[in-house]
Amino acid sequence: MNVGFIGLGRMGAGMAANLLKAGHHVTVYNRTSAKAATLVTEGATLAASIAEACRGDAVVTMLADDEAVERVVLGPEGVAVHLPTDATHISASTISIALSRRLSDKHAKHGQRFVAAPVFGRPDAAALARLVVVAGGHNAAVERAKPLLDAMGQKVFVISDKPEAANLVKLSGNFLIASVIESLGEASALVAKGGIDVQRYLDILTSTLFDAPVYKIYGALIASGKFAPAGFAAPLGQKDIRLALAAAEDLRVPMPLASLLRDRFLRLLANGGESLDWSAIAELAANDAGITSG
Amino acid sequence: MNVGFIGLGRMGAGMAANLLKAGHHVTVYNRTSAKAATLVTEGATLAASIAEACRGDAVVTMLADDEAVERVVLGPEGVAVHLPTDATHISASTISIALSRRLSDKHAKHGQRFVAAPVFGRPDAAALARLVVVAGGHNAAVERAKPLLDAMGQKVFVISDKPEAANLVKLSGNFLIASVIESLGEASALVAKGGIDVQRYLDILTSTLFDAPVYKIYGALIASGKFAPAGFAAPLGQKDIRLALAAAEDLRVPMPLASLLRDRFLRLLANGGESLDWSAIAELAANDAGITSG
Amino acid sequence: MNVGFIGLGRMGAGMAANLLKAGHHVTVYNRTSAKAATLVTEGATLAASIAEACRGDAVVTMLADDEAVERVVLGPEGVAVHLPTDATHISASTISIALSRRLSDKHAKHGQRFVAAPVFGRPDAAALARLVVVAGGHNAAVERAKPLLDAMGQKVFVISDKPEAANLVKLSGNFLIASVIESLGEASALVAKGGIDVQRYLDILTSTLFDAPVYKIYGALIASGKFAPAGFAAPLGQKDIRLALAAAEDLRVPMPLASLLRDRFLRLLANGGESLDWSAIAELAANDAGITSG
Amino acid sequence: MNVGFIGLGRMGAGMAANLLKAGHHVTVYNRTSAKAATLVTEGATLAASIAEACRGDAVVTMLADDEAVERVVLGPEGVAVHLPTDATHISASTISIALSRRLSDKHAKHGQRFVAAPVFGRPDAAALARLVVVAGGHNAAVERAKPLLDAMGQKVFVISDKPEAANLVKLSGNFLIASVIESLGEASALVAKGGIDVQRYLDILTSTLFDAPVYKIYGALIASGKFAPAGFAAPLGQKDIRLALAAAEDLRVPMPLASLLRDRFLRLLANGGESLDWSAIAELAANDAGITSG
Repeated sequence: MNVGFIGLGRMGAGMAANLLKAGHHVTVYNRTSAKAATLVTEGATLAASIAEACRGDAVVTMLADDEAVERVVLGPEGVAVHLPTDATHISASTISIALSRRLSDKHAKHGQRFVAAPVFGRPDAAALARLVVVAGGHNAAVERAKPLLDAMGQKVFVISDKPEAANLVKLSGNFLIASVIESLGEASALVAKGGIDVQRYLDILTSTLFDAPVYKIYGALIASGKFAPAGFAAPLGQKDIRLALAAAEDLRVPMPLASLLRDRFLRLLANGGESLDWSAIAELAANDAGITSG
Repeated sequence: MNVGFIGLGRMGAGMAANLLKAGHHVTVYNRTSAKAATLVTEGATLAASIAEACRGDAVVTMLADDEAVERVVLGPEGVAVHLPTDATHISASTISIALSRRLSDKHAKHGQRFVAAPVFGRPDAAALARLVVVAGGHNAAVERAKPLLDAMGQKVFVISDKPEAANLVKLSGNFLIASVIESLGEASALVAKGGIDVQRYLDILTSTLFDAPVYKIYGALIASGKFAPAGFAAPLGQKDIRLALAAAEDLRVPMPLASLLRDRFLRLLANGGESLDWSAIAELAANDAGITSG
Repeated sequence: MNVGFIGLGRMGAGMAANLLKAGHHVTVYNRTSAKAATLVTEGATLAASIAEACRGDAVVTMLADDEAVERVVLGPEGVAVHLPTDATHISASTISIALSRRLSDKHAKHGQRFVAAPVFGRPDAAALARLVVVAGGHNAAVERAKPLLDAMGQKVFVISDKPEAANLVKLSGNFLIASVIESLGEASALVAKGGIDVQRYLDILTSTLFDAPVYKIYGALIASGKFAPAGFAAPLGQKDIRLALAAAEDLRVPMPLASLLRDRFLRLLANGGESLDWSAIAELAANDAGITSG
Repeated sequence: MNVGFIGLGRMGAGMAANLLKAGHHVTVYNRTSAKAATLVTEGATLAASIAEACRGDAVVTMLADDEAVERVVLGPEGVAVHLPTDATHISASTISIALSRRLSDKHAKHGQRFVAAPVFGRPDAAALARLVVVAGGHNAAVERAKPLLDAMGQKVFVISDKPEAANLVKLSGNFLIASVIESLGEASALVAKGGIDVQRYLDILTSTLFDAPVYKIYGALIASGKFAPAGFAAPLGQKDIRLALAAAEDLRVPMPLASLLRDRFLRLLANGGESLDWSAIAELAANDAGITSG
């Protein structure tokens, strides 16, 4: 397939590379074109504008937040203007339910197809095509997007014919991950102050009831105390909890644990944690217990 | 080995049966002896008193709470009085750090050995010898207890030479499980109100990042909405969070998520949830969102 | 002074009446003009459009939320278009910091003056000119607005030359009131279950350390258990906590108690509390304790 | 009346002095007798033992916590042993509901009268006889205690014929005060980061809706940022929230705001706040917002 790819950050670069590896013709666009260089050496075509990235069967966007997606897709020279009728926009970014609905409406008006396909996984998983993709959209649109989604992920789940349902799964999934981080932060502070080796403690947990990647990945980060460089930066974590809470507010769903996480992230950001991995909120529990890292 | 077993509840009955299967001579004692009948048909000896259950190499206690353990072990005709010098008391109950220390001191004074060996797993796991055992105690004591622990569990982890460290691991582990329940409760309420099928949602989670028994077991319970009969009853969950918070208070570790769980359990108990499984706290999030079950 | 008044809800009607009583020429406008009838009999002039209400020295807006203010002030036929150069817009509504800034900028561009003057007090206080007014704006603008503010309130406090500072005081003030409601709700549930008469309990509190209107007003509401009709409706309370949290997020200030209140209001709204007074969140604590009202 | 007084801390010393001023014969006892010297110069008799302080019509105890009260009252040479039949024990300490019940039972067995009479007020109020006293006990007992209570407080409220009801009022009252501290801490952090002068902000609040001693006293402390020396030390605040939560747990009353306060106090104590005033928890909100004091 001929596919455009917009947004070559740490996640997007890996995803675009995997589209190339799967044999697709990929035209890449990034605001700062330096990031595209490697992909061009791997066979990608460089687009000079958003419009140029929108001339194929589909375009994938993988951007940082609502603002970026709004600018790139709904802006005056954006995807919605330039994408051909019947072509498909695959939005892999983690965005708000509200924006997902607006994108859906806009593309429908323009006779374009829209698939929300947010992904679970950190940059290393993106590079290895080991992302988990949750897709939402009309059957026909999802069918067409499928080969591209398969190229980027190890598993693709279709959750609903409403695109925003996929975004809600993603946001609630990130809420669950952050919940794991918080719970491990508190439990680690407790056992550490009780004289127990945290690494050994986590080894026990993850070899039994908690034998899941989420506990292994974040347990290792917390036990190491190394939160830089960030695999997923704290401001992105804060954003996702904010979007989950916004969706919850619209749907009138009180989420006290999400509220707790919200305050954790704000505290981290207000105290110099901008560039840390989001799992650094686990250190706040240790700080509150008077444990000084070292 | 000759081993006594005190406390034949849903967990203890399975554990004692597995000691028998492993070839040990088991003398069982329960306040209400009816529960011992099945075990006797399987080869156990019935003890008429705590003293009679304390005549072997070791005695295992598996009781509901601190009060029961205090009565059985530290009472006037209790284990500490009757256990021979050099014999080992294996305490598998989930008890407070404070009581674990007191047991440790008492047995030391009497020249007895003490191993705290709380277990992870529900009654079905106990019956299948698939419990996870976390043991704490002096090396020599743990060594002697090892064949018994192996007979009851699929894995045995020795965490520390201080018995109470094992109890702290158990309490913090139950805190982590309850955290999973709460987070699944909130996430499920959110996606359900967003029109997503909760079972399908949970299937996605547990086939990827959250591929661990704890998510599968409790996800299934929450999606089914069937919280009776209880595998682990709400009052026991409330007790364990209380004990975790008590340990946290002694060690001065603020645990806001544990505090949230505390309030969830009190609310469940104050509103008729006595006999439900502890995972029923997940329904509170649904109730708060105006979702009526059934 | 010649002053327009836009927004004749339960608060605005009383405020406009007091401007009339103080001898000002008042031109009133409301989307549904029926509400203006009484004021016209008291001497007010009826405006057929926003434009007509903007021909004097000043215009006061007292509207329900950001959306209403945006429409009335920033809309194509809005206040910002029609207000004469040098005339003053007094915004008494409880709105977001972000919108207050936008209004400030807009009026500055149009050569108009802007004063944010949110008020504390319920409808009965508005009718009696006993509101507390917190004003923000350039000195000259506030000076001109002063006679009008004095006519509507018993006390006028000038907090800053930045209008939005007044809005922040208002939002944080409503957060403090809601905190009182929550704390009284929890304390009342506790003492009620302890067998103590809640009314007597509150009498003790308010005759000593808690001898303030906020405790008397809300204590009486909570003890009575009568939350309808609403003096200040639950959706407005929910909105204000949302705006306080939005301001806190922009400024990166974690506010766990505000987060708790957020969840309380969402729960109330998700369970049929739309038309109740915002103090009805106090009943949630009673419900959680298994106390059934009645 | 002939009255003993046990516990001459910062509160007790002032209370005993006021009993003297009111013309009562006061026999004072303190573990460290140095503290009694001033009172002796004012006319008090020094007791060499608890027994000697128990020979009059009544004895007042004003001690730090449950442990101290248990030792002094229920110990082998304690008040319950030495107080004459029909004499009255007035317990002014802030203690648990559970201990209050035990004292009540014990004194009843010994034919002694018991009044729980915890007090609201800081040391300066104790010195000026401006405490607020909340009393619980049988009518006859309270009647006899009345002249003594009147001498120590500006107001005496009789809440119930069950002594422990008075203790519950006291604990819930301290919960309400701590709630005020927390809410002011969060609101102050918010407006401070919004560029508003906190002192001016508090002046506005306390001149209107929040015109109560509790807001003035704690507002001034928070605005000043001076939390040493402590009028009421952080460990005592932590203890009272613990006791309130213990009562709430027994009665099955979830109190999320009390849980939040619990974690605040633990954090303060875990980070060097032992000797600060309990209102120092307000600084935690400022710290979390990245505001550095000084």
